[in-house]
Order: sequence, then structure tokens, then C-alpha cells
Amino acid sequence: MTTATALGTRDRLIRTASRLMQHGGYENTPIKQLVKEAQATMGSLYHFFPGGKQELAVAAIAYGDEEFAHMLTSGLAAYRDPAEAVEALAVLLADALEASDWLDGCPVTTTALESVGRMPELQAACATAFAHWRELLAAKLAAGGLAGEDARELALTVLNTLEGAETAAQVDRSRAPLVIAGRHLARLVSTYSAPRT
Amino acid sequence: MTTATALGTRDRLIRTASRLMQHGGYENTPIKQLVKEAQATMGSLYHFFPGGKQELAVAAIAYGDEEFAHMLTSGLAAYRDPAEAVEALAVLLADALEASDWLDGCPVTTTALESVGRMPELQAACATAFAHWRELLAAKLAAGGLAGEDARELALTVLNTLEGAETAAQVDRSRAPLVIAGRHLARLVSTYSAPRT
Repeated sequence: MTTATALGTRDRLIRTASRLMQHGGYENTPIKQLVKEAQATMGSLYHFFPGGKQELAVAAIAYGDEEFAHMLTSGLAAYRDPAEAVEALAVLLADALEASDWLDGCPVTTTALESVGRMPELQAACATAFAHWRELLAAKLAAGGLAGEDARELALTVLNTLEGAETAAQVDRSRAPLVIAGRHLARLVSTYSAPRT
Repeated sequence: MTTATALGTRDRLIRTASRLMQHGGYENTPIKQLVKEAQATMGSLYHFFPGGKQELAVAAIAYGDEEFAHMLTSGLAAYRDPAEAVEALAVLLADALEASDWLDGCPVTTTALESVGRMPELQAACATAFAHWRELLAAKLAAGGLAGEDARELALTVLNTLEGAETAAQVDRSRAPLVIAGRHLARLVSTYSAPRT
């Protein structure tokens, strides 16, 4: 096995696990289905992840973390004004969710909820992802002129609101929760922003 | 078997399912553990719920719906002003979550996310619960003087923000996401309210 092939299998396992966990959570992801869809073997799974499914899940959460961070960064970059940027981000999430027939929700949330009090390493990986996304949001808000503490606190609420709205959008098969959340978040952020000139 | 005993067993199954699903979701709730903790038998489970675990889960979601609706109604009744009521509700949720060592989160969200695109009846029960809670919130906001459409849209965002903040609070084992969300939601609601006199 060449190094390139080895990396390929590891990446396929991680990406497949991330997608399956995004669609149904950790418990809904049977290891055999995962290995099959990744075109891998149980042997290669345990070669790359001696801790098995849970160790792979930690890597998959880290992958989902980076993937969503990329979407967040490019989405927020579209507008200079933080309120407008947050509203556009919510629409972007609604677009992606609708295009996936409401399946491509947050790659972390379902697994995060399943992990609480049960799987500490997985819970920690989920906490790290949320913290990373908050940092990106806080940086955007601070760059738009908000005070550091306001930016950090608003980043927390912006992310949590979008997460909750995404769940509602999936369950209701509707863009409305995200689109309305975006409008409300823009309004909230605007109450902190310096007056627009 | 008397009617009282029969009702007792059915209720115990529903309450146990609701609690286990609140703590880990539908997939994390093994049917054997559920029956054991409910002090029931597999026979009584299938007697009351011929559709098995999934039919019981639908009843458990309806139970969690009513339980949280009760908390929501009494929490919101504490303050006449809708902004203050929403902020107090967030603190109430933080109190309950912390008191349960961060386990007693939303009785619906984890199962809702697991059900999307997989278990339509369960997904519908979760959608019904969310819609019920939004109605209660919208009624409070409208009673506080907000226009009907504003109240309905804000109710959607208030619930989604609290849901997302509750997830973050559980994962981070911290009151901060909920307490901060409550403060931000009060601020948002206040921008719609008539000026306080």
C-alpha cells in the first residue's frame, strides 16, 4: 500500500463518517455501512483508528468543523457590515439545506447532543468545533466595529440561533426558520453597531 | 389487570422513553433497557404500542411536548413584560439544565434531528411539539403588545435561539449560552415592544 492510497482510505473514512453523522448522528451510523460506503475494510478502519468508530467519529467531527468553518468564512466575507453578513449567512445555510432535501444540517449538532454525558472525547471534539465557529463569528463582528466583549457574546448567540433555526428548518422542511433568524440576528447586531453612514 | 395498573404501565413506558430520549436521543435508547427501567415487560410494550419502539417514541415526544409546554407557560407567566419573561425563561432553562448535571435538555431536539428523512411519524411528532411551543411564545408576545406577525416570527426565533443555546450549554457544561441568549432575546424583543412607561 502506497502512502497516497493509505491517505486516500483514511480521508474516505473520515468524509463518509462526517456525512453519515451529519445526516443521522453517531448512533444512526452503523460501522459496517460506513466502511462499505467509504470503500474501505474493517481492517483499514482499525489500522487508521485503533479506537474504532468513536476515534473515527472524533476525526469526522474535526473534519466537519473545518468544512463548516470554510463555509462560515466565505459566507461572512460577502458583506463588510456584520449585520448584513450574518443575515446573508442564514440565507446561505437555508440554500444549502434546501438543496440537500433538508439533510445537510450541522455536521456536529446531532452527535454533540448524543455525546453529552456519554462520550467525553466526542463531546470535547464537538465543543471545540462550536468554539472555533464562534471565534470566526466574533472576529467578523469585531472587525465590523463591535466592542470585544459584545462581539464574543453576540457570536455565541448568533451561532446558537442559527443552529436552532437549522434544526427547525430540517424538521419543518422549510427555509422560514433560517431566513427569519437571519433577519432577527441582523436587527440584534445592528443595535450594537455604530450607526451606518 | 385493573385499568389503573394498565394505565400505570403505559404511563411508565411513556415517561421512561421520554426521559431516556431526552438524555441520549432515540437511537441511544435500547428497547430492553427502556422496558426494564419502566418496570414493564416486552409483552406490555407491544400490548400498548403494537408499532413497538417507534410508536412509543411518538407518544414520548407528545409527553415531552406537554411537559415542556407546562414549563414554558409557568415560566412566561412570571413577568408581564414579554422581554423580561423571555429573559427569565432562559435563566429557568439554565437552572434546570445545571441541576440535572447538563442532562435534562430539550426532550425533543435530539430525536428530531435523528428522525429527519428517516422516521416520518416521529419527525411529525417533533414538528408538532415545536409548533405548540411557538404558539405559546407567540401568544405571550402578542399579549405584551406586539403585532401578530411580529409575535409569530419572534416566537420562532426565540424558541430556536433557546434550543441552540441549550445544546451549547449542554456540550460546554455552562450556563453562559442560555443566560447570554436570554439577554440578547430580551434586547431583540424590546426593539418591537411599545416603549415601557
